[in-house]
Amino acid sequence: MIDKKNIYSLIIVGAGPAALTASIYASRYNINHLIIGEAIGGLAFEAHKICNFPTEFEIKGAELVSKIQKHVESLGNPIMIDKVVGINRENNQFKLTTQSNKELFAETILLALGTRYRQSNLPNEKEFIGKGLSYCVTCDAMFYKDKVVAVIGGSDNAQMASLHLSEIAKKVYQIYRKDKLQGETFLINQIKNNKKIEVIYNTEISEIEGNGKIESIKLNNPYKGKNKIDIDGLFIETGTVPQKVLIEELSLETNNAGYIKVEINQTTSQEGVWAAGDITNGSNNVHQIITACSEGAIAAEDISKFLQNKK
Amino acid sequence: MIDKKNIYSLIIVGAGPAALTASIYASRYNINHLIIGEAIGGLAFEAHKICNFPTEFEIKGAELVSKIQKHVESLGNPIMIDKVVGINRENNQFKLTTQSNKELFAETILLALGTRYRQSNLPNEKEFIGKGLSYCVTCDAMFYKDKVVAVIGGSDNAQMASLHLSEIAKKVYQIYRKDKLQGETFLINQIKNNKKIEVIYNTEISEIEGNGKIESIKLNNPYKGKNKIDIDGLFIETGTVPQKVLIEELSLETNNAGYIKVEINQTTSQEGVWAAGDITNGSNNVHQIITACSEGAIAAEDISKFLQNKK
Repeated sequence: MIDKKNIYSLIIVGAGPAALTASIYASRYNINHLIIGEAIGGLAFEAHKICNFPTEFEIKGAELVSKIQKHVESLGNPIMIDKVVGINRENNQFKLTTQSNKELFAETILLALGTRYRQSNLPNEKEFIGKGLSYCVTCDAMFYKDKVVAVIGGSDNAQMASLHLSEIAKKVYQIYRKDKLQGETFLINQIKNNKKIEVIYNTEISEIEGNGKIESIKLNNPYKGKNKIDIDGLFIETGTVPQKVLIEELSLETNNAGYIKVEINQTTSQEGVWAAGDITNGSNNVHQIITACSEGAIAAEDISKFLQNKK
Repeated sequence: MIDKKNIYSLIIVGAGPAALTASIYASRYNINHLIIGEAIGGLAFEAHKICNFPTEFEIKGAELVSKIQKHVESLGNPIMIDKVVGINRENNQFKLTTQSNKELFAETILLALGTRYRQSNLPNEKEFIGKGLSYCVTCDAMFYKDKVVAVIGGSDNAQMASLHLSEIAKKVYQIYRKDKLQGETFLINQIKNNKKIEVIYNTEISEIEGNGKIESIKLNNPYKGKNKIDIDGLFIETGTVPQKVLIEELSLETNNAGYIKVEINQTTSQEGVWAAGDITNGSNNVHQIITACSEGAIAAEDISKFLQNKK
């Protein structure tokens, strides 16, 4: 299985906006590189609407990702769809092993794996996944036409989920453990003015009930005299956490929340390893598509200098 | 002339990609703000081709800027075309004076004035501006159809200038004081493969000659036995320098090259003043449109928090 020819100056692990932009810049610097990721676009792909990318007034996540992907591919860089399961330092290079048993070698690594949905740790959460419980409004909203749904969470993503669901469902309960929604005022005002959405503050779900599919949720605080609400669907929007596996494998330093600590040039605590995008604490922890792209560009520029200095 | 009603939570000084993206994010955070700049788009507007903005494979600078501008304006934020000539701290706010004698007041300032072309300090440079000497290839290339031109410089912008001119002019001399071109390998290779472009290394122009318009340039090193080349046009592409005036007015700390020192959240050495884009040392000094946009977003997010905490 070992093909010693697979030696790249740079392997970009991940295929979201940070990874793809890094590839565009790496091409401009003529860096022999490979992009490898499980799915193109990362979480950005699933976004129903993106309204804060500067050149696009309103665009679907999938469409935005597709524009960047075309740019990457037109520069002659195919994207390998596979999962990196191991990275080891061997002599002066890195050996990457993939799920499909490929072995790849690289002088430098850019880790841009982004984040994944945080599970909310409800006692019987896993049992209802795909049976009324979802982490992806864009994927599953259409199943709830004229039905009653609940969203857990109180940040931008939760607000966007409620607003999108309100266009389809009959009724949306947004359940949040704090007493005030967080994030963009613009979205919070839209939530407040939307007659289909009812926000239940200071409340958590204590149990999901249902026979084969979700039928109701129990609340830890009575709401309008009841501690149980009948629903057809439940969307968990309690945020994201960084993709941990390769961070641990490479012993990269992280902050308390688990994000990779990066310097201003996107270097990590390990020589030869850069990181960019939502997986890092860069850009003052502002996790946006535009900041992820920028980090990808900065990393590629610095990797180019590093490789030049090695020569 | 004083209209005390002109009090904004934020005034964004500048109207390039960083400023415009900051406005988009400021709108999302519902920050009452004004954008004021001399010209929309800054230097990005003049770019003949932009090939490294992730969502656009190839786009004119003016078109890219126009997309961001439309986004800004559709959020209800008109852009004031005027020049800020003075900023003073008065009590707990800033007073801005404009060229057209307006007085504006703001709780916070975001300085995003970008850079301007560096003059190359040739002895008689100023005398030939508009008479064969130009700082803007996009603006003036068309005047040199089938003529002979020279470009001074050896970085990405100089390479892009030579390549663009080679599509129009008969012959392009690129004159550079060092022995090797700098920047993107991709561009350097294009220069090397272009038969119309001749790079003259280790050489500077000692004098411009001409009667009412440029006719020839003298070199400090003989090239192919001659120390004089006949040309019709001269393009100075020796880089950019930050817009200094308001930096001095606000006593902002800068690095040695004159760029505003910013923290990871785009704050400057003065409370209440943020900076973003090419005027700063942010993004590891990678001055790209994508990094400028990102800095604008980061600044707006931080300004939003600052204003919330003041309440």
